[in-house]
Amino acid sequence: MQKDRLAPFGDLKVLDLSRFIAGPHCGMILADLGADVIKVEKPGAGEEARSLPPQVKGESLYLLVFNRNKRSITLNFRDPRAQEILRELVRHADVLIENFRPGTMEKMGCGWDVLSAINPRLVMTRISGFGQDGPLAQRPGFDGIAQAMSGLMSITGDPDGPPTEAGTFFVDYATALYSTVATLAALRVREQTGRGQVIDMALLDCAVSMLVTAIPQQVMLGETMMRCGNRDRYSSPANAFQTADGAWVLLVAGNDVHFPRVVKAAGLDALLDDPRFKTIPDRLKNADALETIIGEWMKQHPAEEVVELMGSTGAPCAKIATIDEVVQNPQLRHRGQIIDIEHPKAGTVTMHGLTMKMSETPPSIRRPAPSLGEHTAEVLSEWLGYTEGQIDKLTEDGVL
Amino acid sequence: MQKDRLAPFGDLKVLDLSRFIAGPHCGMILADLGADVIKVEKPGAGEEARSLPPQVKGESLYLLVFNRNKRSITLNFRDPRAQEILRELVRHADVLIENFRPGTMEKMGCGWDVLSAINPRLVMTRISGFGQDGPLAQRPGFDGIAQAMSGLMSITGDPDGPPTEAGTFFVDYATALYSTVATLAALRVREQTGRGQVIDMALLDCAVSMLVTAIPQQVMLGETMMRCGNRDRYSSPANAFQTADGAWVLLVAGNDVHFPRVVKAAGLDALLDDPRFKTIPDRLKNADALETIIGEWMKQHPAEEVVELMGSTGAPCAKIATIDEVVQNPQLRHRGQIIDIEHPKAGTVTMHGLTMKMSETPPSIRRPAPSLGEHTAEVLSEWLGYTEGQIDKLTEDGVL
Repeated sequence: MQKDRLAPFGDLKVLDLSRFIAGPHCGMILADLGADVIKVEKPGAGEEARSLPPQVKGESLYLLVFNRNKRSITLNFRDPRAQEILRELVRHADVLIENFRPGTMEKMGCGWDVLSAINPRLVMTRISGFGQDGPLAQRPGFDGIAQAMSGLMSITGDPDGPPTEAGTFFVDYATALYSTVATLAALRVREQTGRGQVIDMALLDCAVSMLVTAIPQQVMLGETMMRCGNRDRYSSPANAFQTADGAWVLLVAGNDVHFPRVVKAAGLDALLDDPRFKTIPDRLKNADALETIIGEWMKQHPAEEVVELMGSTGAPCAKIATIDEVVQNPQLRHRGQIIDIEHPKAGTVTMHGLTMKMSETPPSIRRPAPSLGEHTAEVLSEWLGYTEGQIDKLTEDGVL
Repeated sequence: MQKDRLAPFGDLKVLDLSRFIAGPHCGMILADLGADVIKVEKPGAGEEARSLPPQVKGESLYLLVFNRNKRSITLNFRDPRAQEILRELVRHADVLIENFRPGTMEKMGCGWDVLSAINPRLVMTRISGFGQDGPLAQRPGFDGIAQAMSGLMSITGDPDGPPTEAGTFFVDYATALYSTVATLAALRVREQTGRGQVIDMALLDCAVSMLVTAIPQQVMLGETMMRCGNRDRYSSPANAFQTADGAWVLLVAGNDVHFPRVVKAAGLDALLDDPRFKTIPDRLKNADALETIIGEWMKQHPAEEVVELMGSTGAPCAKIATIDEVVQNPQLRHRGQIIDIEHPKAGTVTMHGLTMKMSETPPSIRRPAPSLGEHTAEVLSEWLGYTEGQIDKLTEDGVL
């Protein structure tokens, strides 16, 4: 294995038992920052994400984008010998990440009590839909369920349409990131106390942490926040508009600086004398009328022209990019936020880059996502001193 | 000031110059974990968020939910003496967070070169729309613009409707969290090298990091991911359905385990013999027909009944909660994820809790969001040894 001693967490050993997105992404962030992250999978099919579409040459894109920089080993937890191997590995680990249904680790003889007795320095990062206990703990939970139950769906989408899921699993991402922060905080404590701890992260909690002002607004003002499409809640014009070429732009120009500039740039000077659009509250009250007029103007101009003209006023205005446009964005290329990683089977895999741009110790790509069990022998030999003979026997027996 | 020595970052001193959400939320996470976070604001109006609606007794809910556990001081950066005070404070700080337009800190004589020369141990966490350099660096950027330009809007919403913004500023949240992780990574490096570094985070980068498989799908398969409403991309039935009482539920039951169970629970057994719905690909191909049938059934049953019945099959199913329902959720109460904080002016402020549940050193609430400049004298005395007379003079002169 290639070790990077200058990486922030180059000395960290992580066992990543997690599946799908929230857990694997947490593990990948640590791996990007230098940690030796061992992805632990079941033999045969491996992690559930390996079978998800879309696939390229038999490799799941899901698996590829959430597991770079990791090594993979297989353990069949239905066999007590595999559970014992996990406990042996824990002896050498700093962090264990898991997102099984609460109670599963306990059934495997690998609950917090057991693992922390084996290794008091361990940080165990547990991720679940609702948390390890409480009335809903045993319910199946994932990103969509958390978007639904947190109220986030109820505040997304058109006011006359259904509550709407975001097009990305942003609760999973937030949970991955919160879990990473909590893990690093626990490691910091360990430097002082010599002891690890268990972290109990829930998708629903993370979703609720992103309700902005909706909770105090509900409880303190009795106002239930609802969805408002692309319209800004507190100013107008601020919306998505379709342009002459069928593309869409987002324009936010409701304040007293941008509104007159935008109106003049569009040659709609008459709006400045219209009493309906005099102040911010006036414009908000008459947003329908105002945005209809702006929308008519937008329909007569192509997106590029709109963005250039409106951009020149200083008002935030952007073309709403489609994904084929995003991968061409010169700023993203300049930043290295879209990168290529060579994979032995899938070929050149293009994906998002190393999001955290650090001047002295930037995250790095050291390897592509592993194939299933690619490093089983390597890791068992390296961490536990297993011989080739032992590993062959365990493989034959279906333990690995 | 109340210090918590057992907090993970109880010894950390942070200057938070940031405004709105991404920066302040980063500072608040560090503050929740025990750091002494000093919010630096302009005299008079203070941070921009202080004037945002909604307000309770003259206090902005935005300000309250992103600034708990911080202290506030005022500095008028138009005065060179304030810039000098900032440089003095930097001498004592571990971290500085800022989200001005790139170049602003440099104009204040507080660029990275200057600050790192003053304090080589400083970690400077910079957050901007597009990053500190590159062709788009000077454009105004915030959450909505990042959702638009990253393609996230293009994959959110109804396929026949406009591209759609999520109802929350989830790019801001992700950026706050990535910035926190990067800051903690830099602090870890500093423990080894004694030297800080500068971190250059961009909303657009963070947004792009959440495109899941869309980038490789575009580049490797030539498929442009588009929006698909609430429908799952790879299975059916999996959608939001309106129920008899007008509420909505999310049901995900497309796999071969859940589909037969759900169909039987609904008394729609005939669907099991329908060749259109035999396999996962069959059901996906005929999703319109299948979800119309399920949808008709949903319209005849109230949401609570649907959730109970479908939940008993093991299929993920949840009521899509409105915010008034969310604040009553028993799991969130059990987890302490909705909490009350006393504020001297606003009264009891109800907001999201301490999302990271750590067993040994949980984050804590030590104080509500500060009023503007509440701690100016306290901090200048504590950090820099300023006398009352000096502080009065600087206040009179409009420096503070």
